[in-house]
Amino acid sequence: MRDLKVGIIGANGYSGVELIRILQQHPKVEISFLASHSTSGKMISEQYPHLQGIIEQKLEETNVDHAMNEADFFFFATPSGVAKELIPRFIENEIPCIDLSGDHRLKDSSLYEEWYKNSSSPSKILQKFTYGLSELYKREIAQSTFIANPGCYPTATLLGLAPLLVKNSIHTNSIIIDGKSGVTGAGRKATLGTHYCEVNENVKAYKIGTHQHIPEMEQCMQNLAAESCNITFSTHLIPMSRGIMCTIYADLSKNESTQTLLELYNHYYQNHYFVRIRSENAWPSTKEVYGSNYCDIGLKVDERTNRLIIVSVIDNVMKGASGQAIQNMNIMNGWEEQTGLQMTPVYP
Amino acid sequence: MRDLKVGIIGANGYSGVELIRILQQHPKVEISFLASHSTSGKMISEQYPHLQGIIEQKLEETNVDHAMNEADFFFFATPSGVAKELIPRFIENEIPCIDLSGDHRLKDSSLYEEWYKNSSSPSKILQKFTYGLSELYKREIAQSTFIANPGCYPTATLLGLAPLLVKNSIHTNSIIIDGKSGVTGAGRKATLGTHYCEVNENVKAYKIGTHQHIPEMEQCMQNLAAESCNITFSTHLIPMSRGIMCTIYADLSKNESTQTLLELYNHYYQNHYFVRIRSENAWPSTKEVYGSNYCDIGLKVDERTNRLIIVSVIDNVMKGASGQAIQNMNIMNGWEEQTGLQMTPVYP
Amino acid sequence: MRDLKVGIIGANGYSGVELIRILQQHPKVEISFLASHSTSGKMISEQYPHLQGIIEQKLEETNVDHAMNEADFFFFATPSGVAKELIPRFIENEIPCIDLSGDHRLKDSSLYEEWYKNSSSPSKILQKFTYGLSELYKREIAQSTFIANPGCYPTATLLGLAPLLVKNSIHTNSIIIDGKSGVTGAGRKATLGTHYCEVNENVKAYKIGTHQHIPEMEQCMQNLAAESCNITFSTHLIPMSRGIMCTIYADLSKNESTQTLLELYNHYYQNHYFVRIRSENAWPSTKEVYGSNYCDIGLKVDERTNRLIIVSVIDNVMKGASGQAIQNMNIMNGWEEQTGLQMTPVYP
Amino acid sequence: MRDLKVGIIGANGYSGVELIRILQQHPKVEISFLASHSTSGKMISEQYPHLQGIIEQKLEETNVDHAMNEADFFFFATPSGVAKELIPRFIENEIPCIDLSGDHRLKDSSLYEEWYKNSSSPSKILQKFTYGLSELYKREIAQSTFIANPGCYPTATLLGLAPLLVKNSIHTNSIIIDGKSGVTGAGRKATLGTHYCEVNENVKAYKIGTHQHIPEMEQCMQNLAAESCNITFSTHLIPMSRGIMCTIYADLSKNESTQTLLELYNHYYQNHYFVRIRSENAWPSTKEVYGSNYCDIGLKVDERTNRLIIVSVIDNVMKGASGQAIQNMNIMNGWEEQTGLQMTPVYP
Repeated sequence: MRDLKVGIIGANGYSGVELIRILQQHPKVEISFLASHSTSGKMISEQYPHLQGIIEQKLEETNVDHAMNEADFFFFATPSGVAKELIPRFIENEIPCIDLSGDHRLKDSSLYEEWYKNSSSPSKILQKFTYGLSELYKREIAQSTFIANPGCYPTATLLGLAPLLVKNSIHTNSIIIDGKSGVTGAGRKATLGTHYCEVNENVKAYKIGTHQHIPEMEQCMQNLAAESCNITFSTHLIPMSRGIMCTIYADLSKNESTQTLLELYNHYYQNHYFVRIRSENAWPSTKEVYGSNYCDIGLKVDERTNRLIIVSVIDNVMKGASGQAIQNMNIMNGWEEQTGLQMTPVYP
Repeated sequence: MRDLKVGIIGANGYSGVELIRILQQHPKVEISFLASHSTSGKMISEQYPHLQGIIEQKLEETNVDHAMNEADFFFFATPSGVAKELIPRFIENEIPCIDLSGDHRLKDSSLYEEWYKNSSSPSKILQKFTYGLSELYKREIAQSTFIANPGCYPTATLLGLAPLLVKNSIHTNSIIIDGKSGVTGAGRKATLGTHYCEVNENVKAYKIGTHQHIPEMEQCMQNLAAESCNITFSTHLIPMSRGIMCTIYADLSKNESTQTLLELYNHYYQNHYFVRIRSENAWPSTKEVYGSNYCDIGLKVDERTNRLIIVSVIDNVMKGASGQAIQNMNIMNGWEEQTGLQMTPVYP
Repeated sequence: MRDLKVGIIGANGYSGVELIRILQQHPKVEISFLASHSTSGKMISEQYPHLQGIIEQKLEETNVDHAMNEADFFFFATPSGVAKELIPRFIENEIPCIDLSGDHRLKDSSLYEEWYKNSSSPSKILQKFTYGLSELYKREIAQSTFIANPGCYPTATLLGLAPLLVKNSIHTNSIIIDGKSGVTGAGRKATLGTHYCEVNENVKAYKIGTHQHIPEMEQCMQNLAAESCNITFSTHLIPMSRGIMCTIYADLSKNESTQTLLELYNHYYQNHYFVRIRSENAWPSTKEVYGSNYCDIGLKVDERTNRLIIVSVIDNVMKGASGQAIQNMNIMNGWEEQTGLQMTPVYP
Repeated sequence: MRDLKVGIIGANGYSGVELIRILQQHPKVEISFLASHSTSGKMISEQYPHLQGIIEQKLEETNVDHAMNEADFFFFATPSGVAKELIPRFIENEIPCIDLSGDHRLKDSSLYEEWYKNSSSPSKILQKFTYGLSELYKREIAQSTFIANPGCYPTATLLGLAPLLVKNSIHTNSIIIDGKSGVTGAGRKATLGTHYCEVNENVKAYKIGTHQHIPEMEQCMQNLAAESCNITFSTHLIPMSRGIMCTIYADLSKNESTQTLLELYNHYYQNHYFVRIRSENAWPSTKEVYGSNYCDIGLKVDERTNRLIIVSVIDNVMKGASGQAIQNMNIMNGWEEQTGLQMTPVYP
């Protein structure tokens, strides 16, 4: 028997099904409970025929008491606003949960209400959550029972900037992030914006300056840099299914060479299996992390302008959601952080 | 230490790099030798940055003596015409080899010369090879040292037809196969035909009635049905990287219902892990096997015409090439055939 | 002032907006009325920003009396089942209409009910409609007031087979059509089946043997060949927006060479501007007709099986819908059939 | 007979074939000469089957004397470094030429040599050329015989910034341009970088801070703003064929509202048919200009940072190359600038 029985609430979305892909081969866990509000009563392999013969399990309604009987550890891969309704009962019972949605990431409930246009979880609940950016908060995660799993854009951006922020090597108010995302980021819901013919052969800018990941990034940057941050963040929909690239621009506090900064990054991430730094003049591309939990980073000082350009890529469904959630589960349980996550990128 | 040291000749192509993806996590083997004629002297991770930190190994020239010192089992993922030049030395030394190219698939050397427009390997070499369609020739493969790994289209087609051919349930001369392939099938060589802008937003018919996989399929069909076969086979390039679908049409010898035939298929493949039969009115799609070793099959009797329609899909780089090669390696070594191959399809 | 005022009912779908693209530059007509049930009250350029500054017109509800005041010629680009409700009033008033939907294509109302699972338009209405396959029924169209515009698959298939059917050169019961379509064919409605991530990097078989275009094709084939036809027809969704390819297989009645048949086709279509026959061993691809009204055809006799293979491609939104509708409008009005339709394919 | 006989040097590339698409329907011109070094002697419709029956003309070698006999106006759609070798003879004879390559865009020959890594055209030749950004230099173009047609990225960027630069409303050294391009921008040459499988389902950063369009943009910005400019420019390859989006970031010199700036833009471009300004909170996407000569612009003041964000999109093969070249030809000949260029975007 495997060590841990896990449940997935919101198993029928893209993050849910990616959790299944990974967990079903994870050596330490057993998937013992799947819930989906919209498709309860159906088999998951009926919703996703690629799972035929791999996992034959029924999707259930989320009855909290029943769920807690069935599993000992829970992932919430639910749409915005759902986890905050269900999670208090799990907290009461001290059942460990990782929330992949944005419901518990912001410590300041008024920020949540401003950016998410929705009522926030109570402050005392929010304080129980640790922000699960695995590489940056590994120690805290190891001691936590409740994790707010980071957003996809924040993961790519914060890993791309952390070595500089902690050393105050850039002007925090100069940071501009140009985000480019595949369509899985929008979820499986059928909308005009995710219709094939509206996305194919198209790049579309959206939510420029208004994306709810802005306060999440600023909160973490302020924590790392110990100073306030006001960033500019724009987002673009790219005709591909998976992958996020964040191209980041920032003014250096003092002159530094590309080579020095690459050394800084390599040193900072030396014990972090999933972050890979490209050598000078090599830039990562999203396909190079496709289906894997890596975050690949390239950078260069534009000497004509003394501006730093960083390119950070992840698979948004993996490191940007389900992969990082499982990385956090590993850390919380005292297992090697890469357990069950060492898949090589699928290329091409 | 792992049980077996393996070498890959032609490691820099798409099949080569897919062998690496799988073997590098295979519990029984160690990759000890990589060769590439075109890029020898370079690191594989330089050619494929997605392998950074995963495998740091140099690509070498194929010096046969050196190669045989470095590894005990070889995969040839070389372009057409290369394996037949190199393999005789391996045969002399009884070093097991799996040839992923078409050089050793046809038993009749004159057929090779007619369809490949190239001189054939000598007949006595050809006879040493077993045709490695794992599900159909498992017993023979287990006793073989040299395997001719099947083509991508033949794998999808023959698995789609085998249960009927062995029972002579269809008129073999009525078989029509409409093949649809992703672009990896054309290899990594840069040509006008694989240029993004020529493939994107396009379906292109090619090599209709002249594809070199025709005699390979007919040879195996004759073997299974014990009667001659003349098939019609057409091929189409689809704007996607991975995946093959074969839509197969055949006249039934006698009236049979869809349900009866589905039972026949389920029974025939009941002990074959990698073949999955869809239920009535469900058709497989290529994404449902993406990155995995499955072959998914759906079928239906068109009662208006008494014609059978079969849809068979594989990932051409996996079950159509490198995955099946490793499945064969497993069988040859007496290991479970699915060892190291149980990756869930990446969806979406 | 332009010669004719035209109205479009169902202007907000992909066929509707393609009608606008063409008509807005047509030298003889003026778009004077746009209706859309789902978005009435909005500007068309609000729904489709690519039309900003090109056409600034409001979408209205379809009030029949009002519509007939505003325009003298109507296109119905409405979903299945809508035109048959609205069109009787137009017929009463002898207002010319072209129905792009399937509501009036089948002469036998029981066939409609069997394949469309919906009640049919009354038989006496159906008899007023001419089947608008421009090249095959030009004379009849010129004398008609009400046109049932052909489906996309039937257009590609029937143009691909007509020269043989009228000469009875093939066994009609041997015809197999393997259809491949871009996603615009499914319309603009947001569904799981048209979600980018479900279509991208995927080929999906659907409605095999059950597609409602089957009776439409058989009806026309019987008309051309003067004998009954039972065809096998399968359909596949391709990851692209526009384009249909039909790969057609048929047994020849007697031996004929590829060259003879190409001459037959060239002769048959010599006065038809929009049909282009490829030379021997050249196969058309969908991108080669992208955005244009052409139907490109290649063919070959597979001498090993005496089977004929025909590849026929169109842009499904143009020749498969809106382009052919306008070609019919030109014919009905006594104008050159290519008026306003001579756009070169957009390549690449 | 048409008014002007035009020749295309480099007719076999993507810009060349797009010139053909447009010119072949232009009411004032006749294509009388096509040259292609790599495919001379072949028919253009053999290289591009979509042109079958539309233009049946032979590709010739560029013999300058012969060329000048055949046509009176020339487009150079040649690779970098070719036009500068051929054009002096045309200048001697005062034959009007539009060079679509980068050979004559930079006034400072040392800049050319630094960024293009190639010897420059002599300074006195360079001075004869007018930079052909049609909207910004219409008057100068009208009086010119030799035009250096702008690059694709500069066209989108400069149209996106011009209204601000001429009013000195932004700090020129704060300008950051994040460019995103389809693959046609890389030309038709088959390379690993344009291989379908390397581009598909991928975003790739390239030439960051080193792209040869940087000095071209800075030269024009300095001209407009009358002050020096040092920009940061990054480029990304997007999995699509056509389209460029430039997302531009700049610090405002003084507080201004989005609404005020939109009015400024609308006023600045009021007489320019091909520039369309989106209303507040609407962002353009590349598909909305696909196949057309439009440049669509959206903008917003990010009030949290007092930074301006501009999104500018064009079809890189049209407004970014061949469409703008023909727009310039129209201006040079005193015709309406939109003559032959009023195609509606192909959507979807």
